[in-house]
Amino acid sequence: MSVTVFDSAVQPQAAPKPATFPINQWYVAALSKELEGAPLARTLLGLPVVLFRCADGTVAALEDRCCHRALPLSNGTLEEAGIRCGYHGLLFDAQGKCIEVPGQDRIPAKAKVPAYVVREKDHIVWIWHGSEAHPQPLSEPPAYDVHSSGRYLYDGDVYHYDAPYQLIHDNLLDLSHLGYVHLRTIGGNASIHMNARMDVQSDDQTVRVVRHMLDSVPPPTYTAAYPFSGNVDRWQEIEFHVSHLRIWTGAVDAGSESIDDPHRGGFHMRGFHGVTPETETTSHYFWTMATNPLSDPEAVKAKVVEQTILTFDEDKVVIEAQYRNMCRFGKPATVDIHVDVGANRARRIIERLRQNHADNPTGERG
Amino acid sequence: MSVTVFDSAVQPQAAPKPATFPINQWYVAALSKELEGAPLARTLLGLPVVLFRCADGTVAALEDRCCHRALPLSNGTLEEAGIRCGYHGLLFDAQGKCIEVPGQDRIPAKAKVPAYVVREKDHIVWIWHGSEAHPQPLSEPPAYDVHSSGRYLYDGDVYHYDAPYQLIHDNLLDLSHLGYVHLRTIGGNASIHMNARMDVQSDDQTVRVVRHMLDSVPPPTYTAAYPFSGNVDRWQEIEFHVSHLRIWTGAVDAGSESIDDPHRGGFHMRGFHGVTPETETTSHYFWTMATNPLSDPEAVKAKVVEQTILTFDEDKVVIEAQYRNMCRFGKPATVDIHVDVGANRARRIIERLRQNHADNPTGERG
Amino acid sequence: MSVTVFDSAVQPQAAPKPATFPINQWYVAALSKELEGAPLARTLLGLPVVLFRCADGTVAALEDRCCHRALPLSNGTLEEAGIRCGYHGLLFDAQGKCIEVPGQDRIPAKAKVPAYVVREKDHIVWIWHGSEAHPQPLSEPPAYDVHSSGRYLYDGDVYHYDAPYQLIHDNLLDLSHLGYVHLRTIGGNASIHMNARMDVQSDDQTVRVVRHMLDSVPPPTYTAAYPFSGNVDRWQEIEFHVSHLRIWTGAVDAGSESIDDPHRGGFHMRGFHGVTPETETTSHYFWTMATNPLSDPEAVKAKVVEQTILTFDEDKVVIEAQYRNMCRFGKPATVDIHVDVGANRARRIIERLRQNHADNPTGERG
Repeated sequence: MSVTVFDSAVQPQAAPKPATFPINQWYVAALSKELEGAPLARTLLGLPVVLFRCADGTVAALEDRCCHRALPLSNGTLEEAGIRCGYHGLLFDAQGKCIEVPGQDRIPAKAKVPAYVVREKDHIVWIWHGSEAHPQPLSEPPAYDVHSSGRYLYDGDVYHYDAPYQLIHDNLLDLSHLGYVHLRTIGGNASIHMNARMDVQSDDQTVRVVRHMLDSVPPPTYTAAYPFSGNVDRWQEIEFHVSHLRIWTGAVDAGSESIDDPHRGGFHMRGFHGVTPETETTSHYFWTMATNPLSDPEAVKAKVVEQTILTFDEDKVVIEAQYRNMCRFGKPATVDIHVDVGANRARRIIERLRQNHADNPTGERG
Repeated sequence: MSVTVFDSAVQPQAAPKPATFPINQWYVAALSKELEGAPLARTLLGLPVVLFRCADGTVAALEDRCCHRALPLSNGTLEEAGIRCGYHGLLFDAQGKCIEVPGQDRIPAKAKVPAYVVREKDHIVWIWHGSEAHPQPLSEPPAYDVHSSGRYLYDGDVYHYDAPYQLIHDNLLDLSHLGYVHLRTIGGNASIHMNARMDVQSDDQTVRVVRHMLDSVPPPTYTAAYPFSGNVDRWQEIEFHVSHLRIWTGAVDAGSESIDDPHRGGFHMRGFHGVTPETETTSHYFWTMATNPLSDPEAVKAKVVEQTILTFDEDKVVIEAQYRNMCRFGKPATVDIHVDVGANRARRIIERLRQNHADNPTGERG
Repeated sequence: MSVTVFDSAVQPQAAPKPATFPINQWYVAALSKELEGAPLARTLLGLPVVLFRCADGTVAALEDRCCHRALPLSNGTLEEAGIRCGYHGLLFDAQGKCIEVPGQDRIPAKAKVPAYVVREKDHIVWIWHGSEAHPQPLSEPPAYDVHSSGRYLYDGDVYHYDAPYQLIHDNLLDLSHLGYVHLRTIGGNASIHMNARMDVQSDDQTVRVVRHMLDSVPPPTYTAAYPFSGNVDRWQEIEFHVSHLRIWTGAVDAGSESIDDPHRGGFHMRGFHGVTPETETTSHYFWTMATNPLSDPEAVKAKVVEQTILTFDEDKVVIEAQYRNMCRFGKPATVDIHVDVGANRARRIIERLRQNHADNPTGERG
């Protein structure tokens, strides 16, 4: 008579629906600095994963469940050879193979856990979310040389959102909200934001929104970080990619040089924004903010990051309130305005990628 | 290709069932003192509403959701002309019409949010819960001149209940529980309460319960507030209306004067009890307690209100425990006793009003 | 027209499924020391019960709901004659009969609440979980003379588990986890545990697991409690019964005497582990730990209990994490290893007893 440890008392949570996130994509799994100590438990795209740094310095990602009695492996401990379960001590290597069952010579053939493809690049750890046809990556993960060029100082953090990932896209693609949500930091005059010249370009994978606010009063974060002499010419350049956004903002003294010049001077903030679904209704938001201090670099960087934290905290309050309200009403708010152009294009890209997968579930590229 | 911001990631909460509350009624939405500052978010009869005081001093009530991207308007700010959304700055007037879209000249015709009918009277804000046939009030909201006559000092508060509204009716219509729940304050001897002469009268909208406790020991709250010389003749007069109760309690020195005399002296407490469903399973309880101090009026009023708070806190513990237990067992407790007469008549009134609506959903008065 | 207090606003929680726990069994309801003061509310095998000690010293158990308006009786007060409801004062005796309705001479015939069969023995309160055919016990509750023999000092506590009861069985039947979960206290060297000689015997109601760890380093709790001269011969004897386990562990100086001798000396810890389902997914864990101090008995006992608490806290963390993970994945972890033999036999016993009941729901013994 066989015995099952998994019985009526185990009440499965609602099973995830068919993949609702674009697949055959790299998503951010962690910032490198998160993997300095204990194993890291994180649900990514609906999959509970344990991430850890191996003895050889590479990062491994396994299903976060021991194949023996289901304890999360993230409750275990790291060893030279891999990760050891914190209940009965089974030891797994970076590929998820069980390589030791304490007190037992034979290791059952079934004793293994699924491993996921992860890559570390420019201090970001990426996970491949592949289709059945493409469990192995079709590309290298994105580069982000702001983290490694030496031109910038930066820091960052991971925020957990009780809101679906696309609401974070919407927020980042429309910086007109700065005038209402972020008055205390990077906002500045609301009508300047709303009336800024805005240029939107897109293709089938990216959206690019550029806004110029000429001869405007610099907001508090800017004046705290840089010795502007008066009004500024200010820019926001937003690049949306399926799994992350890059936002380059900054300002030069008004009229001093062209803000179309890619090598322009002045004050710069370069934001990296990795937006990874945790579940259909919750998200991870990985961000770093880099800047180019003229003097006293660590202090200025710390100030810019501190202001960024204030700003992103404000966004989190708004976006989570927005999502709770959407659920509460259970029906869409339907009026679009001029600032929605970029966000709506990004939604079309995501929708198309999802649809592609629904039409072609093995994910073969046509 | 159109884009929807409202997609599979939005998980609507259970839709409200057909109206289970009596309609074509005024319900309490707020105490006037709650509308002195920021916008007030409150779900009333299943509808999320933002309440705010306009520049002209009147009170407005709108659906608490911006029609652009669904942020609660209660997260926004009040201006001379209305309420401005805290995300992208859309401005709405007291009728819910959008009167400004920042950075855009044309205001979309669809840019509006539903408005609700509210009226302020005697320091109470009422909301009309009308049928389709009667979105506009069929009557004036109830008067409550205890708040404005000058004979009384009063104060009050709003309690949130994790219990349906009728359990609060039950509690207020049967003051025999004072002897068991409120020993420390207004209780007094339990058997005096249970054996009091009780007179119950009712019609199709109201129930009136009168109890006299002659020659009884005054309870702690009474002796703290009034210089009784010994035993008292005590009364409780409870008037149930569909949306609120008025409870007049008090005492005179035993045998000193008739407690049937509407102009009798002695110590008085006049309670207003607005009971408004938040949802089918939760409620708002708006109360004020007024008294007639002989001397040191502010101190005596403060004492009476303090004792009232202790009492109502005790009721909340009992009623919420009762409701949790009803849900836990999932079946009725069925034994009635003598003190239930008034509460049961009130339940019949509510049941009939609901039934009327089910038979005649447009709410036309026959 | 009749009135129901139980209406659409009462949202019953999911009704319990057909009994999934072995019936016609005694389960632990409380430790005697829990019944020294106020009434005790506890859900046992899916039934909300109030337990209280009567004036004659016996323990009573009633359905925890007043038959009048459903307040938990555990919110009430104890009197000489029974328990009085904290809302309107109905008084119930130990058999659940209402013996007083304040202010009313006649007591309605229906005014009663179900009573459960409980027995107190050796400082443990047991409740009979009978079938329809056997509402009265078929046996006496188990004896546990460790609590009353005078040979041991002991103390204990009740833990609430957010995990089903069989995961606690698994944990207690496989002490190999000591080497990984309990390193700080009773663990000792992991490989000693995993490689210990293990003997498993079972019949249709019990499982017995004996493990001997000869010539091993004593773990921290042992050396703190007993003056071992060096390595020890250590034993673990685990007896599983349907409703509880008895675990006798200890050690003698290595080679000094046989650890098969039932009268052996050395350091002893005798654990009682009552595991009672609260619901299908939550459990009560009643434990006591007894020891035989050589000197300074109260201090040594306190030390042993303190260490036991540390240990059981660690188990609770692991088991609840295991259960959350089982629910999160919604499918079994399937690999068995050598240490699972005892736990799997216990699961077969439970499964057979459940199956018996499904085949023979009145619970008649064939």
